[in-house]
Amino acid sequence: MIELKQILIVRTDLKMGKGKVAAQCCHASIEAYETTKKKNPEYTELWKEQGMPKVVLKVKDEIELMQIYEKLKKYNPVLIKDAGKTQVEPNTITCLGVGPAPSKYLDKITKNLKLL
Amino acid sequence: MIELKQILIVRTDLKMGKGKVAAQCCHASIEAYETTKKKNPEYTELWKEQGMPKVVLKVKDEIELMQIYEKLKKYNPVLIKDAGKTQVEPNTITCLGVGPAPSKYLDKITKNLKLL
Repeated sequence: MIELKQILIVRTDLKMGKGKVAAQCCHASIEAYETTKKKNPEYTELWKEQGMPKVVLKVKDEIELMQIYEKLKKYNPVLIKDAGKTQVEPNTITCLGVGPAPSKYLDKITKNLKLL
Repeated sequence: MIELKQILIVRTDLKMGKGKVAAQCCHASIEAYETTKKKNPEYTELWKEQGMPKVVLKVKDEIELMQIYEKLKKYNPVLIKDAGKTQVEPNTITCLGVGPAPSKYLDKITKNLKLL
């Protein structure tokens, strides 16, 4: 069986609080889910059967986030920009979401990132 | 225009870390979104046009979470249980998600809760 997961990757340099991080990850999670549902509906179905596993990882800044984003391109990652009403400047890229996609491919790209 | 939002409500007594809270909220967000899409598809469409606003609130324990859950019942809230592999006991209810639904109704029920 193919193991699938969704990965959310968050910038730590923005010093966002718990609630802010959670809200940004929820944006990323729904957008990545909807994108995958359009492009690989078989992944979203199988992922639901597997209990929708999700992992939240961290990067130190926007540069590191964009490097990972480029490497993840073929799995249709989504970047989340914040409207900037609270805590961060308008249009700051706060995090990315990718998948569900096969764990074995995503893990190869994200293996050096730590859990948030 | 009807203003819509999705609300995620998290227990603080479990002392979950940032990444754990984010992952639990993402579960709640996707499940509440899918539930709403089935029951009130006009809400999910309009909510997307509005930029999918989300708010993350907190309660002090399971009792308070379940009280709010009961009050939110007509808006089809979802409860999230954790598999308990990390940080919390198996089957612990960690948070709930509700909506998107009209802000004016949700706000009446959640107005005494603080932002996480």
